[in-house]
Amino acid sequence: MSHPPPLPDRSTWPEVRALQEIGAHFHRRGWSLGTSSNYSTVLGRDPLQLLITASGKDKDRLTPRDFVLVDGEGRPASATEPKPSAETLLHTLLVRRPGVGAVLHTHSVWATLLSQRHFAQGGFFIDDFEMLKGLAGVTTHEHREWVAIFDNSQDMAALARQVEQALDDPQRPTRHAFLLRRHGLYTWGRDLDEARRHVEILEFLLEVLGRSAN
Amino acid sequence: MSHPPPLPDRSTWPEVRALQEIGAHFHRRGWSLGTSSNYSTVLGRDPLQLLITASGKDKDRLTPRDFVLVDGEGRPASATEPKPSAETLLHTLLVRRPGVGAVLHTHSVWATLLSQRHFAQGGFFIDDFEMLKGLAGVTTHEHREWVAIFDNSQDMAALARQVEQALDDPQRPTRHAFLLRRHGLYTWGRDLDEARRHVEILEFLLEVLGRSAN
Amino acid sequence: MSHPPPLPDRSTWPEVRALQEIGAHFHRRGWSLGTSSNYSTVLGRDPLQLLITASGKDKDRLTPRDFVLVDGEGRPASATEPKPSAETLLHTLLVRRPGVGAVLHTHSVWATLLSQRHFAQGGFFIDDFEMLKGLAGVTTHEHREWVAIFDNSQDMAALARQVEQALDDPQRPTRHAFLLRRHGLYTWGRDLDEARRHVEILEFLLEVLGRSAN
Amino acid sequence: MSHPPPLPDRSTWPEVRALQEIGAHFHRRGWSLGTSSNYSTVLGRDPLQLLITASGKDKDRLTPRDFVLVDGEGRPASATEPKPSAETLLHTLLVRRPGVGAVLHTHSVWATLLSQRHFAQGGFFIDDFEMLKGLAGVTTHEHREWVAIFDNSQDMAALARQVEQALDDPQRPTRHAFLLRRHGLYTWGRDLDEARRHVEILEFLLEVLGRSAN
Repeated sequence: MSHPPPLPDRSTWPEVRALQEIGAHFHRRGWSLGTSSNYSTVLGRDPLQLLITASGKDKDRLTPRDFVLVDGEGRPASATEPKPSAETLLHTLLVRRPGVGAVLHTHSVWATLLSQRHFAQGGFFIDDFEMLKGLAGVTTHEHREWVAIFDNSQDMAALARQVEQALDDPQRPTRHAFLLRRHGLYTWGRDLDEARRHVEILEFLLEVLGRSAN
Repeated sequence: MSHPPPLPDRSTWPEVRALQEIGAHFHRRGWSLGTSSNYSTVLGRDPLQLLITASGKDKDRLTPRDFVLVDGEGRPASATEPKPSAETLLHTLLVRRPGVGAVLHTHSVWATLLSQRHFAQGGFFIDDFEMLKGLAGVTTHEHREWVAIFDNSQDMAALARQVEQALDDPQRPTRHAFLLRRHGLYTWGRDLDEARRHVEILEFLLEVLGRSAN
Repeated sequence: MSHPPPLPDRSTWPEVRALQEIGAHFHRRGWSLGTSSNYSTVLGRDPLQLLITASGKDKDRLTPRDFVLVDGEGRPASATEPKPSAETLLHTLLVRRPGVGAVLHTHSVWATLLSQRHFAQGGFFIDDFEMLKGLAGVTTHEHREWVAIFDNSQDMAALARQVEQALDDPQRPTRHAFLLRRHGLYTWGRDLDEARRHVEILEFLLEVLGRSAN
Repeated sequence: MSHPPPLPDRSTWPEVRALQEIGAHFHRRGWSLGTSSNYSTVLGRDPLQLLITASGKDKDRLTPRDFVLVDGEGRPASATEPKPSAETLLHTLLVRRPGVGAVLHTHSVWATLLSQRHFAQGGFFIDDFEMLKGLAGVTTHEHREWVAIFDNSQDMAALARQVEQALDDPQRPTRHAFLLRRHGLYTWGRDLDEARRHVEILEFLLEVLGRSAN
């Protein structure tokens, strides 16, 4: 009789430690309560290797066993991996885009509220805030950032296709982030540090907009 | 002349440590300020043994002596136990239901406000939020969660009977939680981890509803 | 030529440690930012000895030298004491009342807002909240707590006389707390633990009222 | 072939440690999220030497290498310094004024909202709050503090000239702080402790005003 091999021990991986710290930080802020949110970072290209949070883990107490190594189609790299997040397809879609090395998805109160408030318009602009300069490539507050909102869905393949088509909308291209309705924020960066900074910048701006008149 | 025996030393019990951590965490969040809130977890069945916070303790500084062992009727297991919370009857009622191993009761600002806002309707629905998937057994955001509101009372026996009858209301069954008017939230889970997660999920959703238009 | 004697070293006094912890806790909550707030506890009676925070100290970093020993008239016990808070007279007035062993004064956003909102009515009632049971002597939520509001003043002797007369108003007696307009909250207890609990209970209730419709 | 000399090691400088603590503290409060904010303190006069945060650093994780030594015109003291913040000119302008030894610039939600709400009036008064006494030189709550608002700009030389002229406006002189529109708060003090206290006092008062009716 054979036993399943033990889960891989990744306690010494710097990426694991960085993601644990991010989970504790975002949980403290109220952006990743309960088992909400998922985070990923690219470990290799050719072929793509992505480390992503496993499904259903408390984000303030991520252990080295709460991560999954997946390939470019979001499949676990081996039979010993835990179950990846259901939203892995959105992560693999995003890290295939140029310059994206990490994806962070959070569930904050203000993102949830704004995703409903502006859903009928398909999204909203954030413009003219100094804080926008914290987003990669933005060098002046005189910037208009489009934040698209997609309807929430449990059909991840369909949702991923819809997102992929909309990201490059010539009228309103997505640069740094989008929202899922009554769900949360997706943002990314060339590495975890940049993606973490984008979460802070965007959550700040969403709170500012959320506290402005409806 | 006889002395009362000393309070039981439970500093090494994992359940005590888990409840201390929960108290500190919920206090930091503002969900259990002062001596508000009470928490319990099942230690044994046949006969039922429940460990519950003692009456009137500060939740950010629970000591191993601030817990009581009670039986299925909420009576202290021995004469050396401290006084259990007045609301013990609500806990014993809940842990007799299938699949309930822990009960957490919190007092947050948003629970207090919503319990008044929707009292005349007997409760309110929370629906269509991704965050609902953090509740046990919910697998899609397309879910309607009924949160009943009961009038507050100091007559715990009467309140417990009223709650018991309403939980299985065929029109609007209670699945995960209810509110007491101008008082707070009751939720539960198969164990402390699940109940703790339900508090985080529900407090998040109450804040979202509370910040939406009145 | 004589040097002034050094400030008394009180680093081992339990009251000093308790007050340092309270300062750090209330600062974290946002109830004692900057040099606002002052705290005191009775050390002896006959004659009255009160330990109170010195004037103008940051409450998140109180050192053992940031406290003053004063007598029943609020005068420093010796020439080596630092300058007591300007509001010492309010503390000595309160600790002369029966059952008062500690006084805590905080400056929160919600206390400031409510002290203005209800000033014209001379105060407001807090009633029918379970959280009221955290106040000493309150055993049911069916309780009406009167919170008087006094106009702010830099003339502490005049303000103390006005407060003293109003505390025992037969129509609306003050039980646990009062506000100073656009200034903050005063509450007290038989000891520091009780007074600290009263701050938590009252700040919670002020936030609930503050977030209710104006 | 020559290597650039290593960045100066300033890990033992007390000013560096104080600025690191300020960054962590303000980040926790939500006043310096992401790479927003910059802080400076005077190290010497004749000639002026100012230590200021380097450009684009996360404020919750400032390292001893994230600071720049600049002269009175905001130029790095040597070729081995990192790039100073773009807003260095505002800092050097401020520390040339009498009694200013440190400048702290933060980006809070309430500062951002108020800087827009009152922009058309050129600023707003804060008056009649006890908390104002935490500002240097203010001894009574019966004080009117003018907070000017300047339009945001990426042209720091032009902005610095505009600020310099307005600070001494005889009608509405600036005493402790000003805002940049949709950007943040500038305040200062004779040293870092005083400037840090001014941030706490002003952020508190901005939140009070922000939560008052629009």
